[in-house]
Formats: sequence, C-alpha cells, structure tokens
Amino acid sequence: MPEREFIERVRKLIGTAKRRELVRGIGDDCAVLQVPASQQILITTDLCIEGVHFRREWHAPDSVGHRCLARGFSDIAAMGGEPVACFLSLGVPKGLSQKWVNEFLRGFLQLARRFKVPLAGGDTSSSKKITADIVVAGKVPSGTALLRSGASPGDQIYVTGDLGYSAAVLKRLYARKKVSGRAVDRHLYPVPRVEVGGALRQKKWATAMIDLSDGLSVDLAHVCDESGASAVVEAETIPIAKGATLDLALHGGEDYELLFTARPGIKLPQKIAGVRLTMIGRIERKSSRGPQVKIRDHRGDLTTLKPKGWQHFSKN
Amino acid sequence: MPEREFIERVRKLIGTAKRRELVRGIGDDCAVLQVPASQQILITTDLCIEGVHFRREWHAPDSVGHRCLARGFSDIAAMGGEPVACFLSLGVPKGLSQKWVNEFLRGFLQLARRFKVPLAGGDTSSSKKITADIVVAGKVPSGTALLRSGASPGDQIYVTGDLGYSAAVLKRLYARKKVSGRAVDRHLYPVPRVEVGGALRQKKWATAMIDLSDGLSVDLAHVCDESGASAVVEAETIPIAKGATLDLALHGGEDYELLFTARPGIKLPQKIAGVRLTMIGRIERKSSRGPQVKIRDHRGDLTTLKPKGWQHFSKN
Repeated sequence: MPEREFIERVRKLIGTAKRRELVRGIGDDCAVLQVPASQQILITTDLCIEGVHFRREWHAPDSVGHRCLARGFSDIAAMGGEPVACFLSLGVPKGLSQKWVNEFLRGFLQLARRFKVPLAGGDTSSSKKITADIVVAGKVPSGTALLRSGASPGDQIYVTGDLGYSAAVLKRLYARKKVSGRAVDRHLYPVPRVEVGGALRQKKWATAMIDLSDGLSVDLAHVCDESGASAVVEAETIPIAKGATLDLALHGGEDYELLFTARPGIKLPQKIAGVRLTMIGRIERKSSRGPQVKIRDHRGDLTTLKPKGWQHFSKN
Repeated sequence: MPEREFIERVRKLIGTAKRRELVRGIGDDCAVLQVPASQQILITTDLCIEGVHFRREWHAPDSVGHRCLARGFSDIAAMGGEPVACFLSLGVPKGLSQKWVNEFLRGFLQLARRFKVPLAGGDTSSSKKITADIVVAGKVPSGTALLRSGASPGDQIYVTGDLGYSAAVLKRLYARKKVSGRAVDRHLYPVPRVEVGGALRQKKWATAMIDLSDGLSVDLAHVCDESGASAVVEAETIPIAKGATLDLALHGGEDYELLFTARPGIKLPQKIAGVRLTMIGRIERKSSRGPQVKIRDHRGDLTTLKPKGWQHFSKN
C-alpha cells in the first residue's frame, strides 16, 4: 500500500478525536502542540522490534500495538505527567497482511483513546522485521516532573502493584507451556500507571520515580546512579505476582509498575487509583565505591543486587 | 554492548552541550522541555532503514547519521520553525562494528551541533537491519507555523535551490557509475533549509510550505490536497540541478529543498541566506474532480503531473 493511502487509512481510523493541546496533527510536516505557559513538555521514544520486544506467534497484533504505546505512556507516568499526543513510526515487511497492520493499529488506538491521546503523526517504511518506534509527548506543571535523580539517603523505596508477572508469562511461553487467564492479559495488555504517577506528583509524595520496564534490579540502579546514592531492598517485602518468583520480580522486565522514593515522614495511602503501594527498602548514602544496590534476604544477610534485567543488546 | 554502557557512551560524546529549552535530557524516563509561553512546539519523526533509505556500501556511516537527522530538521524548516531537541532510536544488527556506530553518531551529532540542537533522548535495540528513527522537537511563535493547507488560488509557487541532484547521484550509484564532487556531498550531507524557512515565516512571505523529501510531484500534491486547490507548474522554470534531468527534478526525492506559496503581490528577494528562490508555477481553483497538479511543457501543452516520487511501500 503506498504511503499516502496508508496515511489516509490511519487518518480515517483515528476519526475526529481531538485534544486541546494538539493544534495540528497528521497531514503536515510536523505536528503542532501548545501547552499552557505553566507547563513543561515531556518527550519519550520507545523502539519495539519483532523478535526482540515481541514475537508474532506469541503476541496478537493488537497486543503488539497496545504494548508499544504502553511503554511510552509508562515513561510519561514515571515523570508524573499526562500524555497529550502520540506518534508512530511503523516499518512493515513486504508480505505482512493488511489485517495484521489493521489489528496492530486497533490495539494501539484503543489504548490511545483510553487516555484521550490523539495519534498526531509518524512515518512508515518497509522493513525486514516489524518495527514500531513510538513517541509520546506529555505535559507536567513546570518544575514538578519526578526525576530519577531526586532520591536522598533516608528516603523509603516503594513500588506499585506486584512484580514479575510479565516475565513469568514469557518464561512459560519460552518453555512452550500453556498460558491463560488474567496473567496473560496483564502481559499482553499492561495498563500504564498514569493516574498513580500523576497523583504522586500532585500530592508531592514522591522524591524520585522511574517505571519498571527493564526489571527492578536495573531500574533501581538507574535511580541510585542518577541520585548519587545507594539502596537496600528487603527481599521479604517485594510484592511478587501470582505465578512469579522473587527472581522474576527482581529481574524480570515489562512490569510497567512504578518505583518511587518518599521522605520517611510521609504518610502514604495503601492504594492510589486502586493500585497497591508497597514499601520495599530504603535509600542510603553511596559507598566509597559509588552508588550500590543491596538486598537483605530472610536471614538478614546483605548481598549486592546485580542489575541483570532486560538488556536488549546482550540478549540478541 | 549493553544498553546502559551505550547510553553512557552517547552521553560522553554529547558532552555538556546544553540548550535553554532543554530542562532535562538523556538519563530519565522522558526529556523535559520548556518553551516560552508565546511559542508552540513542533514534533516530527522520520524512520530510516538500511536497504530502504540508505545502503551501507554507498553511504558512509557518518552520512547515514547526518541524513537521518537532516530529514527531521528539514520537516521543522518546512513549518518555519527552529529545532530545539532531537531524539534517536537506534536498532543495530548483532555483527555491526562499534566503529560503524561511532561514525554514525559522529555524523548525527555534527549536524545537531551545527544547529545547536542537543540529543535529548532515545532508545536502543538489536535489529536485523540498521534502523534509526529520529524525532526532532522544534518551536515556532504561536499561530505562525507555515502549514501545507495555507495555499489559495492565485498564489505563486516557489522552490529553494535546485532540484534532482540527489536522485541523479542515486541513479549513478544504482548504475554502478563513479560519482564524486559536490553533487555527492549534497546527496550524502544535505543541508536542511532551516534559515530560509525561518525567514519566510518571520517576514510573512509564505502562505503554505512543505519540504521536498518525496519529490516535487508528490509534495506539491500534498500542498494541493491539504489546501483544497489545484496547481500548474511551468516545466521551463524548474531549477534543474547540474547532472539531473527534468524528470529527476520533478520526481526524484531527498532534495530537502523547500516548496512554498506566496501571494502574487509579494516582492521576494532573489536569495535568502544565500539560497536561490525560483517561481515555478501557480495555485489555481480545484477542478470538479478535486485538487490536481498539471505541468505546462515548452510547447505550452498542459498535462497532469502524476505523483510518482519516492514511495517506500511500493519500492520494497
């Protein structure tokens, strides 16, 4: 299908969905956005490639569309922001069916609509493997974005929801075991924690935040690196998802939960927007060798928690 | 190379290059931008894939990096905007040398620096073919972005520079002929017309604008479609680049010149920022069959100019 027709088709699929911040969407050289003077703009990009981030035999096309966009929304959530526009660059192999592309777009646009975010532009190309790079633009009141670098010694570490379910499903898929039920749905159609992130920002409850996309061990290390601090995690407090293990909860990627830190005096609710908050450890001063993440097991023994979550380049 | 190390390497390459609008760049879940209250934000994405947009045997890695980013800057230029931040999602095949990636980044960052635009984020993955999706965010005073939809009957059509050189070089490369000299440089390192676009917007000289990335016949059709108008191009006035033909100037892609329309009374300079402006035709009322582009040859005969420029999906 020529690019022009493809864009016309996408335009029709989108319909007349509008959003105040989007002055001009698909159909020009650039999208034009306007946010109120009091707001800053957030931009994130996520590259999803067949065989690396999904497999055609495991992931239905609408799930692939959903998951690509969910990664971007989760990044916006991790800053405490609100998504306002999304973009899709789609590379499609020669023989791919039109039905696959339509279903992909359906899953993508369904999640976009749920958060009232218009598809504002993108690009198309042919490619060897299905390739989707998504961009999400968001907004946040100026100076209030929750950065990775805001954690201080003494801060308590929290996570939303429970961890490891996505990796547990992937493990079963790799082992060619049957998977079904709610766990699969959470793997195929993860819900980014936009409301939770927004509330944590608005209430000024969090000092630093990141989304758990690469795995707790990797993502907490990012917070420590950027904050110039160390962390101790209490193994027994980690909320392990049903069907997962401590190992998967620590190192499995694609949970799309949030990890944040809060001053010790702060009284947090048990849940925000129906999502449970669990304290899992504490930020400490960095050691003489730099920021480090340690884990205390049920016997009280402290060991280094090596970052060994999802690492694209080393896996393929 | 693990993603974390790759990002550290990129951060070092970027150095301390900063820009007022970029509040927070690489190292968090999102980049944070702030533009003055009087400005709107422009966002464009361009997908570049090995074998579709470039060939490793023809294009040196620094040229690939340069060309990917130039496509995005050219889109910003086409709105009359100023680029303020860029993003790179890079997919790299397993066996690709570190040297290739370094050279790619060098070409990319050299063009970014030329326009004082910081690399503010991105993503990395493994992939079958080299895949670079770039995002450029820009700014423009609110309500002044030059859209494709602003042309009216009577407006005169202009292009910057001359056309067809990039397609002429590609044709020689396809035919395995030797290419050298300035034409190759313009193909390998095209300079996006950011200053020209900005001046046309600031002086209020243009009513509609687009960049010539897909070929004049395709891009002018976009302007006509979006403006709900037709166009007549005078073949004899087309500025054909040295070594190119009328056909390549009309249908060859990747010129990265600007096409714009201006009210007939407007007195334009011969050059802006050293780049020649040439009037090539006129906007007319659309026919009963909708917007159409026609071309008048040297005998005065009028025929339909079919859009047959660069069409990714049909070529591969």
